[in-house]
Amino acid sequence: MVNRRIAEILRSGQPDESLQVQGWVRTKRESKGFAFIEVNDGSSLANLQVVINQDLPDYEPILKKLNTGAAVEVRGVLVASLGKGQRIELKAESITVHGEADPDTYPLQKKRHSFEFLRTIGHLRSRTNSFGAVFRVRNACSAAIHQFFQERGFLWVHTPIITASDCEGAGELFSVTSLDLKNIPRTENQAIDYSQDFFAKPTYLTVSGQLEAEIMAMAFSNVYTFGPTFRAENSNTSRHLAEFWMVEPEMAFCDLEGDMDLAEAFLKHIFKYVLETCPEDMEFFNERIDNTVLATAENIINNEFQRLTYTEAIALLEKADVKFEYPVSWGLDLQSEHERYLAEQKFKKPVIVTDYPAKIKAFYMRLNDDEKTVRAMDILAPKIGEIIGGSQREERLEVLERRVLAQGLNPEELWWYLDLRRYGTVPHAGFGLGFERLVQFITGMANIRDVIPFPRTPQSAEF
Amino acid sequence: MVNRRIAEILRSGQPDESLQVQGWVRTKRESKGFAFIEVNDGSSLANLQVVINQDLPDYEPILKKLNTGAAVEVRGVLVASLGKGQRIELKAESITVHGEADPDTYPLQKKRHSFEFLRTIGHLRSRTNSFGAVFRVRNACSAAIHQFFQERGFLWVHTPIITASDCEGAGELFSVTSLDLKNIPRTENQAIDYSQDFFAKPTYLTVSGQLEAEIMAMAFSNVYTFGPTFRAENSNTSRHLAEFWMVEPEMAFCDLEGDMDLAEAFLKHIFKYVLETCPEDMEFFNERIDNTVLATAENIINNEFQRLTYTEAIALLEKADVKFEYPVSWGLDLQSEHERYLAEQKFKKPVIVTDYPAKIKAFYMRLNDDEKTVRAMDILAPKIGEIIGGSQREERLEVLERRVLAQGLNPEELWWYLDLRRYGTVPHAGFGLGFERLVQFITGMANIRDVIPFPRTPQSAEF
Repeated sequence: MVNRRIAEILRSGQPDESLQVQGWVRTKRESKGFAFIEVNDGSSLANLQVVINQDLPDYEPILKKLNTGAAVEVRGVLVASLGKGQRIELKAESITVHGEADPDTYPLQKKRHSFEFLRTIGHLRSRTNSFGAVFRVRNACSAAIHQFFQERGFLWVHTPIITASDCEGAGELFSVTSLDLKNIPRTENQAIDYSQDFFAKPTYLTVSGQLEAEIMAMAFSNVYTFGPTFRAENSNTSRHLAEFWMVEPEMAFCDLEGDMDLAEAFLKHIFKYVLETCPEDMEFFNERIDNTVLATAENIINNEFQRLTYTEAIALLEKADVKFEYPVSWGLDLQSEHERYLAEQKFKKPVIVTDYPAKIKAFYMRLNDDEKTVRAMDILAPKIGEIIGGSQREERLEVLERRVLAQGLNPEELWWYLDLRRYGTVPHAGFGLGFERLVQFITGMANIRDVIPFPRTPQSAEF
Repeated sequence: MVNRRIAEILRSGQPDESLQVQGWVRTKRESKGFAFIEVNDGSSLANLQVVINQDLPDYEPILKKLNTGAAVEVRGVLVASLGKGQRIELKAESITVHGEADPDTYPLQKKRHSFEFLRTIGHLRSRTNSFGAVFRVRNACSAAIHQFFQERGFLWVHTPIITASDCEGAGELFSVTSLDLKNIPRTENQAIDYSQDFFAKPTYLTVSGQLEAEIMAMAFSNVYTFGPTFRAENSNTSRHLAEFWMVEPEMAFCDLEGDMDLAEAFLKHIFKYVLETCPEDMEFFNERIDNTVLATAENIINNEFQRLTYTEAIALLEKADVKFEYPVSWGLDLQSEHERYLAEQKFKKPVIVTDYPAKIKAFYMRLNDDEKTVRAMDILAPKIGEIIGGSQREERLEVLERRVLAQGLNPEELWWYLDLRRYGTVPHAGFGLGFERLVQFITGMANIRDVIPFPRTPQSAEF
């Protein structure tokens, strides 16, 4: 007996085909002499309807077990469906119940549950329509990302998670240690005796793989990271996670123009891929979660992104007929309200702002000839604000050394990063994409905790 | 001017094509009236030979800059090569030197360097032939893994890196904390005041994503993890890393047979993919690193893996005409020498040993009816020993609870894992592949530190 996934049956199954499906019961409806169950195996949002006739052996005792959540194996024959809502259904010839789900205690009954409640049962929530759709789309985004870069000859590089370098200064870090926290060993002068720690020095969870990706780009020209990154920032919001995935391509022999071209093509590719591979899930989000997600996707795919400098953006914001909460002034960073004004009201499409003041950007961004701005770029999208941040990197050794010192960093700790400029330096550029923000953007899910299987947030590291 | 990668030019470039390449000088040879440089851009092991005639403007000053490691952009025309070793070469019409590399200080001169030395310059070693080949093959393995699972409808799931559960008992754990190690806060009774820590409880770096992958398999049927895992084990060997990547598929409605079938198809797929996409790199490993790697790859691809039970394996080992260092006796774990005997001498191909004694395996493996063995399987490969370990999982709630207690674990901490058996439980199975061991296996690289870009080992977390 051929075992088939439900997505594939719904797409191409034909009447009279004999087959077997395995999945979980979503609902049961009983009628006189027969019953319907909806079976889902996670391969699609839609369920396969199974018709069970009362002449099935053990009809009554089996039916009793077929409650929401029960795991079943059904063998039968496909028949054209007379009911509406489905083209085809499965006429059961035998049913095996692998595991029951007691309707008195199983938390996922038919009624709709709040996302807040579902977060407390993170081990079960993926069995709902919403989270099924979220994690299928999340997987599609991942697949699209790898496809995009692999087709272009980029190598996926695994940059370290545990790092001794905290020099990016990107906020608070998690410490990693093998020391016994109850009894931290001390040296004679009461300092921590790191000689007893696993790495013999303080180590942290990485906040970005960029600097190491630059190492790899100086050998392979085009590389990307796609891995977990961490912030110990105590932000209990719908947009922050302590553990999140990030994608960071890095290209040698590439300037900011090339960087923007790649980032724009990249975003368009992901949206196209998701619309093509998860049309049903995307319809679901549009109907149930946020009725602008399909229009947003089309907007991203079909528009050339607007490019303007930070200085031009400030001028536009100063002229804008809008009352902003935060001040607009050359030298200050753009706030979310400013970014959204540009993308949603002014241009009504994604906007790439370039050449930010050096003072508000990282030390590694390439200094422009005006000595005031750097070759940074942020992509601001309607509805979500900043989705990608990137820059051309400072490839000139003497300028980089100057910038390192100006930002109070220690050039000795960055010896290897400076070596990249000492030996065979090239113009290069890259960007970073927060993966969960992207999934939020695509699906319209309001809370970032609902687009990652097991969110890590202040006071919470469940499962 | 069209910019092209060197791999592609070497494959399909034709005489008279005008193009531009960007890369780094590997070697320079000067002759009377002209010079050759070999340029590499990381896209392939082979370099593109560039011919520079003395009538190029600024011939002498440019030539002085073209030392090993210098970054160049060369525009020119392809010509058929008269020399041997290459089909085609590039006749330079203009050369831009982006970054020089001082031959007096640049550590990567023409001579061969030991891998030990190259580890000390991890920021530069990817620019050598060996590490170039290693990281291209590593990327190909990654791409093959995603391709294999995506084509079969598996979802890539991101299981958490930071975890509060240490219940697998898989060795020593790294602690993750936002507390100030110099000044750990205490409660009144001198315990650590975890209420001040980020997650308000002790947290660790994950040793495996399996338990969380099971959660996801109970919603999507087929999933896989591919992410970093950690062991704070103080093993300073050529086979251990504190941070390594692991691949862990998990399949609902799957028994050990299905698990073995998938694992065998999976390994074969990866080897085939690497041979097809990196033939030149694989030839290099076979010539320079280990002259058995191509034969090993063919062995994996072309043989049906031998399957036998642990009990049968013990009987074979007891009869073997070999003096083992470690004792062979039913109930003891197989040592590396035993595994290698089976794969290399007895069967001369990969071997899958199943049904190990319950006492030496993890609590979640399915107990056989004999109550002494579990449905575990290890794949043992010639040359490397265990490469994959997997099992059918215990899906019966009451048996699992018994096994949890028998192994001294706390069922309360595993409440969510037990819930998976309480609600809609199904037969399911999965396996784990240590990614770096796989890359070692394929490339023949002797030390695991040389197959990951930035190895983390006792006393070492550089770059």
